[in-house]
Amino acid sequence: MQEILSSVAAEIRIDLAERSYPIVIGSGLLGDSGIYQDIPTAATALVVSNTTVAPLYAAQLTQALQQRYDKVLLVTLPDGEAHKDWPTLQLIFDVLLENGCDRKTVLFALGGGVVGDMTGFAAASYMRGVPFVQVPTTLLAQVDSSVGGKTAINHPLGKNMIGAFYQPLKVICDLDVLATLPSRELSAGLAEIVKYGPIADMEFLSWIESNLESLLAREPRAMAHAIQRSCEIKAWVVSQDERESGLRAILNFGHTFGHAIESGLGYGEWLHGEGVGCGMVMAAHLSERLGLVDKLFTERLTHLVQRCGLPVRGPVLSSSDNAGRYLELMRVDKKSEAGEIRFVVIDGPGKAAVRSAPDAMVRSVIDLCCA
Amino acid sequence: MQEILSSVAAEIRIDLAERSYPIVIGSGLLGDSGIYQDIPTAATALVVSNTTVAPLYAAQLTQALQQRYDKVLLVTLPDGEAHKDWPTLQLIFDVLLENGCDRKTVLFALGGGVVGDMTGFAAASYMRGVPFVQVPTTLLAQVDSSVGGKTAINHPLGKNMIGAFYQPLKVICDLDVLATLPSRELSAGLAEIVKYGPIADMEFLSWIESNLESLLAREPRAMAHAIQRSCEIKAWVVSQDERESGLRAILNFGHTFGHAIESGLGYGEWLHGEGVGCGMVMAAHLSERLGLVDKLFTERLTHLVQRCGLPVRGPVLSSSDNAGRYLELMRVDKKSEAGEIRFVVIDGPGKAAVRSAPDAMVRSVIDLCCA
Repeated sequence: MQEILSSVAAEIRIDLAERSYPIVIGSGLLGDSGIYQDIPTAATALVVSNTTVAPLYAAQLTQALQQRYDKVLLVTLPDGEAHKDWPTLQLIFDVLLENGCDRKTVLFALGGGVVGDMTGFAAASYMRGVPFVQVPTTLLAQVDSSVGGKTAINHPLGKNMIGAFYQPLKVICDLDVLATLPSRELSAGLAEIVKYGPIADMEFLSWIESNLESLLAREPRAMAHAIQRSCEIKAWVVSQDERESGLRAILNFGHTFGHAIESGLGYGEWLHGEGVGCGMVMAAHLSERLGLVDKLFTERLTHLVQRCGLPVRGPVLSSSDNAGRYLELMRVDKKSEAGEIRFVVIDGPGKAAVRSAPDAMVRSVIDLCCA
Repeated sequence: MQEILSSVAAEIRIDLAERSYPIVIGSGLLGDSGIYQDIPTAATALVVSNTTVAPLYAAQLTQALQQRYDKVLLVTLPDGEAHKDWPTLQLIFDVLLENGCDRKTVLFALGGGVVGDMTGFAAASYMRGVPFVQVPTTLLAQVDSSVGGKTAINHPLGKNMIGAFYQPLKVICDLDVLATLPSRELSAGLAEIVKYGPIADMEFLSWIESNLESLLAREPRAMAHAIQRSCEIKAWVVSQDERESGLRAILNFGHTFGHAIESGLGYGEWLHGEGVGCGMVMAAHLSERLGLVDKLFTERLTHLVQRCGLPVRGPVLSSSDNAGRYLELMRVDKKSEAGEIRFVVIDGPGKAAVRSAPDAMVRSVIDLCCA
């Protein structure tokens, strides 16, 4: 690939009335001060990053922002889902207050989903709301957590339990940063991309199957398309249901089983995308047992998840009653109502639905899918 | 007064499009299950109260709610502004998660402003938003913190720094609970009522002056009118500026100086309303020095604040440079922009404005007003 100073491959508009915002996808964006020109000025900008990403990209971003903000602060959080908690969130508030930051201060989330979720929640809560910009540096964050305005931290008793719906001013997906992404994280990001096939667009699923080698090789053109299409589908869903009262739940395909795995093993053991990959396989099996898809569909999805480099068998969370432990963990899911677990299932290829299922059926799926 | 089972004296509608809600003012409301009939049902209701209020009214409220909710939980927080912090907020999340509460769970804030602010922020953040109802039990909460959707907790470096704009489903102002209110808290509530005169309605100020004895005697008819008119004025302001970008700032008359006093002495030393009462006197002096009101106006307001049983002289916060300490504390106020303090001043009787003022002028007011 020839060197490009800054090139926009695609721009998607998330349409949410007065909270609408653009997602820009391209190369060399992060360090290009021009890309921030539509963000309101203020005395101060605060870049929130983590110990892994900050050494790689914070200087570039800071330099670009210094052309618009008198003071550009940086706070570097410890890396990982295990730190998506209140004490770490406090580090952001501490910097803001110690520097006398007012309510016009703009926060920039430079990192993966954890940094994005925490920065977003900090922005939603600081002085009851300050503006923020997402600069996602993982594939997963680019296709998933940067769209839809979900922000949160974890509680010891559940993932993403404390948070807010809060929209960024802009999302900047720089394809260049994917070059430094560990391959395990690349696979985790692919899980969320694959997800959009079965729930909404089987043509896109076929495209992924045909182009998986290019995606695994991080070819910018393939990446740009995969990110764009994923964001478009998510944007379509979110614009119809911003606060997750109905349709939006389909975006959680694979997440009910996935969250149980993540929380059962302890956050950080499996990556979120790994849980989702394996969770989609389990949810496909459940859909099959509910008579909604055939065996071939489950096999096709399982094969693709495996080709992405993702686990297709769930971990054993309890040696005494493994299925019982999964059920227990899934009952605290935010989609649960009055203790009944609501699963996102595939209701025929390309269409998702939310259903409950008999415990015995869920148990048989867990028994079948766990190593 | 004859015994009334339940009687609504007034109902005010806060008009915020899809987030509109009613404030009901009357006697015997809290324990009347009929008053909760328009609140959505759910498996669980959680009453949040504190160690002072729960023994007095939690049983009544719980009993009324049990007719609509299978499970009514109660969490009793430690009382006071000093506990308006994250560890105390966590107590609410802990109860919700330990009981597997879903996102339809309704929270009921039973207490003063601190309980209301914390319950509101917990409701805004739990699973990114669950419904909540305000049942304010102090005069201050009834006229002030129950209207406008401001929720927050304190940060060691500033009051109300972490929070959300989040509207309740309904606010229930039961006049009967004022009977058990300590007289110091009654005075604190009167401060916020008096506030609406100078900023918006001089006729109301005259009415307060004429009826202050009835208010201090907690006569229901006078109380109902004072609460209703205060809520109406606040509602009118809030409906025009929900997220505090302009006009709404006038509601903070007396609060800039007041917050400095509260935070300088340590939260809980002075009541919020005491800080506001004294802060209004200081802000009146500042308005006078800015040439916006005459000496007579300042004297009239000072006299009324004093008759309410409120302090009219500020505490000394630093023996070396008292005015400097006030200025330092006021600079972290949320209305500040780029380090410049924005004061709510009276721009002629019945009209407020937001202005900055030279440090020397502010210092002279502080020197004049502090004991």
